[in-house]
Amino acid sequence: MSRTLLAISAILVASLTVTPAAQDMEQFKEDVDRIVAEALQRGATHDRLRRLCQAAPGRLAGSPAAAAAVEWARQEMEALGLQNVRLESCDAPHWVRGDVERLAIAAPGDLAGRELPIHALGGSVATPEGGLTGAVVRVTSFDELTALGEEARGKIVLFDRPMDDRQLDTFKAYGGAVDQRVRGAIEAARAGAIAAIVRSITTLRDDVPHTGGMRYESGVEQVPSAAISTLGADLIAARLTAGDQVVLHLELSCGMLPEVPSSNVVGELIGTELPDEILVVGGHLDCWDVGEGAHDDGAGCCQSLEVARILLALDLRPRRTIRVVLFMNEENGARGARAYVADHAVELEQHVIAMESDRGGFAPRGFTCDARDPAARAIVQSIATLLAPIGASKIVEGGGGVDVGFMAPAGVVTMGYLPDSQRYFDYHHAATDVFAAVNRRELELGSAAMTAMLHVLANLDERIPSNTR
Amino acid sequence: MSRTLLAISAILVASLTVTPAAQDMEQFKEDVDRIVAEALQRGATHDRLRRLCQAAPGRLAGSPAAAAAVEWARQEMEALGLQNVRLESCDAPHWVRGDVERLAIAAPGDLAGRELPIHALGGSVATPEGGLTGAVVRVTSFDELTALGEEARGKIVLFDRPMDDRQLDTFKAYGGAVDQRVRGAIEAARAGAIAAIVRSITTLRDDVPHTGGMRYESGVEQVPSAAISTLGADLIAARLTAGDQVVLHLELSCGMLPEVPSSNVVGELIGTELPDEILVVGGHLDCWDVGEGAHDDGAGCCQSLEVARILLALDLRPRRTIRVVLFMNEENGARGARAYVADHAVELEQHVIAMESDRGGFAPRGFTCDARDPAARAIVQSIATLLAPIGASKIVEGGGGVDVGFMAPAGVVTMGYLPDSQRYFDYHHAATDVFAAVNRRELELGSAAMTAMLHVLANLDERIPSNTR
Repeated sequence: MSRTLLAISAILVASLTVTPAAQDMEQFKEDVDRIVAEALQRGATHDRLRRLCQAAPGRLAGSPAAAAAVEWARQEMEALGLQNVRLESCDAPHWVRGDVERLAIAAPGDLAGRELPIHALGGSVATPEGGLTGAVVRVTSFDELTALGEEARGKIVLFDRPMDDRQLDTFKAYGGAVDQRVRGAIEAARAGAIAAIVRSITTLRDDVPHTGGMRYESGVEQVPSAAISTLGADLIAARLTAGDQVVLHLELSCGMLPEVPSSNVVGELIGTELPDEILVVGGHLDCWDVGEGAHDDGAGCCQSLEVARILLALDLRPRRTIRVVLFMNEENGARGARAYVADHAVELEQHVIAMESDRGGFAPRGFTCDARDPAARAIVQSIATLLAPIGASKIVEGGGGVDVGFMAPAGVVTMGYLPDSQRYFDYHHAATDVFAAVNRRELELGSAAMTAMLHVLANLDERIPSNTR
Repeated sequence: MSRTLLAISAILVASLTVTPAAQDMEQFKEDVDRIVAEALQRGATHDRLRRLCQAAPGRLAGSPAAAAAVEWARQEMEALGLQNVRLESCDAPHWVRGDVERLAIAAPGDLAGRELPIHALGGSVATPEGGLTGAVVRVTSFDELTALGEEARGKIVLFDRPMDDRQLDTFKAYGGAVDQRVRGAIEAARAGAIAAIVRSITTLRDDVPHTGGMRYESGVEQVPSAAISTLGADLIAARLTAGDQVVLHLELSCGMLPEVPSSNVVGELIGTELPDEILVVGGHLDCWDVGEGAHDDGAGCCQSLEVARILLALDLRPRRTIRVVLFMNEENGARGARAYVADHAVELEQHVIAMESDRGGFAPRGFTCDARDPAARAIVQSIATLLAPIGASKIVEGGGGVDVGFMAPAGVVTMGYLPDSQRYFDYHHAATDVFAAVNRRELELGSAAMTAMLHVLANLDERIPSNTR
């Protein structure tokens, strides 16, 4: 009985805390319903994404496709009727994949000559012309590699720790594997190895490699690094387990070119009453070169644009300014995000929130939010409650995304659109991240959730407390 | 304040009512966690579905593919180690599509000769050899058709009411459109028309037609009936709206052959303590002939088999019997379901529940349940609460599915697995319902939800009250 009483007390306290905010939200219920109906009946996110993926697939920062995406986005903002449409310049790294990426088995003999699909990791140096050849040592952690001591010297290291399938949140499983991709080349070089091959970080077991960013460290030799498909890694692992020596031949022609000028694309719905208070919504315009960047992050860009379209279509001009920012170079440098905080440093305290959509165009679950003030959290939770009919009522503590994350140190509350995570890493950074993999209704429901959340936040009597207060 | 107090009272009452049941469920939490981990790490539903779709695509009742599916399922149950594996016979209608299904535009002249993709509806008669030709009248309801009076005589009726995109539950939108497919031919014939063309019931606007069942009525002439793609319907509608006369040439070679013997496939995990109390779980083995029947309903069949695999793998032998029933002929006659209730009539009062999975292999939301007894509903809700981590905690009042629905009049509580509905009608009854459209993690999470629900229901001290008590 005492446990029951405790539970009741907890519920009482919770209801007393939440009730006032929840009541305030009732006034927005009709707007939210209209936003959802507009998104489902006349939503234009999906069609917009089709056009972006056709106009600028593989728009890696520094590439002509990225420049095409910038111009596409500028025109799209103009056509939608956003105000103050502009390019805000940033530099961008210019890494290119080159024509050759090839991994061939040299031993054991029965597999000799067999090629395994790979992608160079973004930022990798090329192999020497003609490639390099080495025996494979397989590890599932950096500690294992260290423990090998001199055994890795002159070899190719296969980093082969899979995503943990048991994690319900696939982003957590990604977080538990991505160190291999980001730091594999550094750790391999430290061990004296000649290259790093990394198991693709994906929820699928198939022949498709998934690329992504990697780093070098000053003072550590730069060795080439590539992602191998999960089935390819399994094949090598099986032979090593069986006691075979596996020798691979790796050839990559990728490399870094001089930096190029690029830009974020920005447009606004200027606030009718509080134009200097700003809510940012955005995604990143760049994507990896191997796919169309449909889920990552064409979806987030097109949803951010849709927020503006829906509000204009329903004549819901916001009291505060809603600023759409499509960031450049999230994937391999975040130059756009860095430029944004540098250029808008003085203005950041007027940023009420900054929301990013960069987890794919899947069915809504809710939002992440890093608000530390309990009142701010309660308000965000109350708004989300209005989104229960579309399944978007969950507020998870956490940052909003790589780009908006650069604003967090200045006290800006950051939020992320949170869709269902089950399918994202099927497509992430792969040639399969294409428009056809995005479902219309799921994508449009995401736009509805984002629009509703931003609409209420932009029209509250008082702005929510920032993280500095 | 009085509103707040009311809310608090409501929460108090709710917590007092629910708390005891919720506490009872704590003992199952560890089992549920193990079930979810097993499904995510070693789930075999997806691989099983791949094999079913390869072994017996297009397994419409009466077809050789349906016979292959029956034998596939029998072998699968034997291999999994189910007990009492058997075929339970039923007759099956044997409708065949034939070689010809063709819709060509005869007028207006600028479109003459253009062919529009169609599928004959299941059960339709053929056109006369060489086809039939008629002008089109377009309606969006049977009332509109009636109001046309003699205007429809000798014509082809286009039933063109789309699914309501605003419905969040796409099954509700389907329910609001499906009368056109099921009864269109009857109503068209009553109006003196020579054929019925029905807008495909799908959430997509594309060139893919979606077939499905249709009926004739005794005493009403049997006219041929086919589904046209949504874009095809839109094209005709646009021309009619512009004032053109649209004339179509329809040719179908489909027809009904003599009935053939077929069967349900049944296997059990015999209860360790209460073997005579039975929980049925199943899907339907047949599917439309145009696709692989992956979501509809290979997914539900393979999930039902996975329930048994998981329980055996974890050594969770149920106290009550869990009976897997893969029904034949759900799509066009439900002969399997009818045979099941006829053959098991005496035993039905020992059926604790009957659960069907027939809403696709998408991410879990919860279950439908038609239990009328409040205690039964409370227990089911409490079990579902254990499934909150995988998003399956929602219990919606409603029937369990077409097949298990035949047991409801006998008082059997029926339940349906309830996944997210956003994508189902993209694929439903179309050539696009293929294995590749099913996501592994989403499918396996559905198996986990079903297994957990059935495990707890099969092991409760007291069986939940049936609907007759």
